[in-house]
Amino acid sequence: MSKVMIKDLGSFMEKKVKVSGWLYNRTSKGKLIFLLIRDGSALVQAIVSRQTLSEEQFNLADKLTQESSLEIMGVVREDNRAVGGYEIEVESLKVFQICDSYPISPKEHGVEFLTFHQHLWIRSQHISSILKIRAEIISAARNFLNSQGFYQVDTPILTPSACEGTSTLFKIDYFGEPAYLAQSGQLYNEANCMALGKVYTFGPTFRAEKSRTKRHLMEFWMLEPEMAFVEQEENMSIQEELICFIVSSVLKKCSNELTTLKRDVSFLKKVQPPFPRLTYSRAVELLREKGFDIKWGDDFGAPQETAISSLHEKPVFITHYPATIKAFYMQPDIDNPELVLCADLIASEGYGEIIGGSQRIHDYNLLKKKINEHNLPEEAYQWYLDLRKYGSVPHSGFGLGLERTVSWICGLSHIRETIAFPRMLDKIYP
Amino acid sequence: MSKVMIKDLGSFMEKKVKVSGWLYNRTSKGKLIFLLIRDGSALVQAIVSRQTLSEEQFNLADKLTQESSLEIMGVVREDNRAVGGYEIEVESLKVFQICDSYPISPKEHGVEFLTFHQHLWIRSQHISSILKIRAEIISAARNFLNSQGFYQVDTPILTPSACEGTSTLFKIDYFGEPAYLAQSGQLYNEANCMALGKVYTFGPTFRAEKSRTKRHLMEFWMLEPEMAFVEQEENMSIQEELICFIVSSVLKKCSNELTTLKRDVSFLKKVQPPFPRLTYSRAVELLREKGFDIKWGDDFGAPQETAISSLHEKPVFITHYPATIKAFYMQPDIDNPELVLCADLIASEGYGEIIGGSQRIHDYNLLKKKINEHNLPEEAYQWYLDLRKYGSVPHSGFGLGLERTVSWICGLSHIRETIAFPRMLDKIYP
Repeated sequence: MSKVMIKDLGSFMEKKVKVSGWLYNRTSKGKLIFLLIRDGSALVQAIVSRQTLSEEQFNLADKLTQESSLEIMGVVREDNRAVGGYEIEVESLKVFQICDSYPISPKEHGVEFLTFHQHLWIRSQHISSILKIRAEIISAARNFLNSQGFYQVDTPILTPSACEGTSTLFKIDYFGEPAYLAQSGQLYNEANCMALGKVYTFGPTFRAEKSRTKRHLMEFWMLEPEMAFVEQEENMSIQEELICFIVSSVLKKCSNELTTLKRDVSFLKKVQPPFPRLTYSRAVELLREKGFDIKWGDDFGAPQETAISSLHEKPVFITHYPATIKAFYMQPDIDNPELVLCADLIASEGYGEIIGGSQRIHDYNLLKKKINEHNLPEEAYQWYLDLRKYGSVPHSGFGLGLERTVSWICGLSHIRETIAFPRMLDKIYP
Repeated sequence: MSKVMIKDLGSFMEKKVKVSGWLYNRTSKGKLIFLLIRDGSALVQAIVSRQTLSEEQFNLADKLTQESSLEIMGVVREDNRAVGGYEIEVESLKVFQICDSYPISPKEHGVEFLTFHQHLWIRSQHISSILKIRAEIISAARNFLNSQGFYQVDTPILTPSACEGTSTLFKIDYFGEPAYLAQSGQLYNEANCMALGKVYTFGPTFRAEKSRTKRHLMEFWMLEPEMAFVEQEENMSIQEELICFIVSSVLKKCSNELTTLKRDVSFLKKVQPPFPRLTYSRAVELLREKGFDIKWGDDFGAPQETAISSLHEKPVFITHYPATIKAFYMQPDIDNPELVLCADLIASEGYGEIIGGSQRIHDYNLLKKKINEHNLPEEAYQWYLDLRKYGSVPHSGFGLGLERTVSWICGLSHIRETIAFPRMLDKIYP
C-alpha cells in the first residue's frame, strides 16, 4: 500500500492508500464521522463508519481534536462535493497524539496573539497557502533565469563595506574587524557577471531601519540578477518577462491556494507584456495633478507609488530618476546627465515598488568621481573599481524584493504574512 | 543577427552571429589571428583574417590583450580541432576596452595574491568551472526535492537563541536585544514541516570558529530538508537518492567543467545506491585496527573521517553515535538509549562529512529533559517544545553542507575555492 500525499490522491482512485496528517475539522452524523485532514500538501475528507471500524477505532476517531496527529488507511473515492474532489473511506486509523487545547481556535485572534504563536499559525490554511505561493514564486523565478543561461552565484552576507552607506546596516564584530550584514549582493554580482556573463543571487538581505511599516521587514529575501553586455532597455525587458513568467506560474500551479486566500485574480491575469513606462518627470506631473505637494527632485514614498499604481491596470516602470536620489553606481543618461538610466517597477493594485534596477557605470573615471562625491571610502571600493579597469563592459541588473512580490501576488495587506518567521522592529521571537 | 551565448553556438551552424566576451588568449600566424574568447558560458576560437577585415580592424585585433572586452560578428563553422567543436570566422569586431596589465597572468601566482584579487580570479577557467558546478549542484538538489513534494520555506538568519550553544555564533545588537546569526534553520524547519509536511531551507549559515582549516568557512550554505512522519531509515534513503541525483546531474551537465578541473570522475560514477552503512561502534573498531588512538565515546575529526572514507568506494553512512557527542534533539535508539538515531554521511575519496542527519525527539517530556540536561534556557525553547504538545509526530531531517559537497564533487583540496567570495578567519575582503 502506498504512502500518499493528499495532493496526489487523484492518481490513486479506487486504490487503498495510507495518508498521514493532522485533523483540521471533525463533524459527526450518526454512524458516520467526517474527518477533514491536512497533511501540508492539501486537505481531504475521510469518512469513518461504525460499520467498517471496530468500536474502539470508531470511538478513537470520535475523540480527535483539532491538530491531533494521525495516520489513516482506506480507499480513495471520487466525490465532487468533497473538498479537492476525493474522499477516503477509512479502513483503519492510527493516532499519534490527541492534541489538547490547541491555542489557535477557529475564533478570531488578535495579531499579537497569532504572531506570538507563529510556529503554530503557519499551520493555518491562510498562512500555509501564502508559504506555498512563496515557494512557487521562488521556483518560477529560478526556472526562468536558469532557462535563460543565468548562473546562480551566492554573494557574501558578511561584508566589509556597504552598498548604500552604513546607517541602516546591522554591524558585527568579525574577529576584531567591523563587518556588516549585506543589504544587497549587487556589487559582488557585478564582479560575478564579468566572470560568468549572466548571474543571479537569491538570498537574505538585512536592513536595520527603525521603522514600523506594512512594507518593511528587517530580514528579507532578494533576487538580484546582473548581466554583462546588457543595457537598460534590455534589462527592463527581462524584468517584464520574469514577472509575467512568475505570475503565470502561480496562476497555473497555485489556484487552490489563491482560492483559499480569496484572491481576485482578474488583475493578475492582466500581467502581460509590455508594461507601461513613464519617466520620473512625468510621474511628478501626474502626482501634482492628483494634488500631491511634490517638487522635481523629491523621492517617492508609499503614497506616491500607490497613486501611480492606481493609474494603470498592469505593473508600471518609472524611469529616469534624478541622479541625486539614486545610488552612486547608476549610469547617467547621455542626453541629460542629471538623470540616470534606471527604473523602479511598481506593482499593480496599489502595491508599491517590487523591483529596482539600473544600468551600472562602466567608466573607471566616472565611477571614481561618483564614489568621491558620495563620500564613500575609495580604498574599500578598489576591487569594485578594478572591474572598470580590466575589460569593462556595459552591464545592468536589478533587485526583486521577494516579500513585496509575495504580498502583491497574494493580495495581502501586511508584509509580515509573506515569510514564515518575520523579523520586525519589535519581533524576533520565535 | 542573433546575439548568442558561446555554449549555444551549436544551434547556429553556418549562420551569422554576434558574440560578446573577453579575450582569453591570442595567437598570430601570418595573415591570421586566432582569438580565444570567453563569455562566461564557454570558450570559442574566433579567426580574424587580413583578407576579410579592414587594415584598421585587423590591427585592432592584433592589439587585444588578455581580458580585453569585445564583440565579434561572424559565421559559425564546425571545426573538430577547435575547443568546443566550433569556430567563428570574424567579419567585424568592436572593442569595448583594451585591458592594460591584467594582474593575473598565465604564470603561477601565490594563493594570497589570488585571493586578494578574488574579484578577478573568479574569471579563471578553474574558478568559473567550480562556480558553474556549484550552480548545477544547487539546481539539481532543488529540482529533486521539488519533484518529491517538498516546499522551500526560508528560515530566519537573525535568531534569538541558538541551535547548538552560543560559543561559536556571531552576535548582533537587534535594536537593543542580543541576537545571533543562525548556524542552522533546523529548529524552525521542524515547525514548518508540521505545517507543510515536507520542507527545506537553503540559505547561508554562520560559524564564528577561530579555526584555520581546509574544511571550514565562516559563512557557508546549507540545504536542510525536514520531513514529518519520516523516521531515520527513510531519512537515509532520501539522502542517498538526493546525493545520487546531484552527482548524476553534474556528470551529465558539467562534463566540460569537470574536464577543465582535470577531475577523475571514475569514483563519481560509482555513486549509486545503496551506500554502505556502519555503526559508530564498528567505526571505532575499524579505526583502532588502523592504529588510531581512539576510545568509544570520542568524536571523529577529519583524519578519522578520511580513514573511514578510504575503506569504501562510495559515500558511507556512520550511524548510531553516542548521545553524548550529538545534539540534544536527537531521538534515542529504543534498543540502546545511550545511542541516537542519527547518521553522518562521509563522502568518498577521503572527503569528510557532507551530511549530518537524525530523527528528532517527538516526545514532549523527553525533549524537555534533554533541554535541561544540556543547560539550555527552557524559556527560549518554549515554541520548540510546543511542536511536541500540539499534534506531535515522528519526524526527521538532515543538513547538507554545500561547500563540502562542491569540494568533493570537484575534487578540490581547499574549501576556499568552492564559493565566489569566501569568508575565512583572516579574510573578509573583497
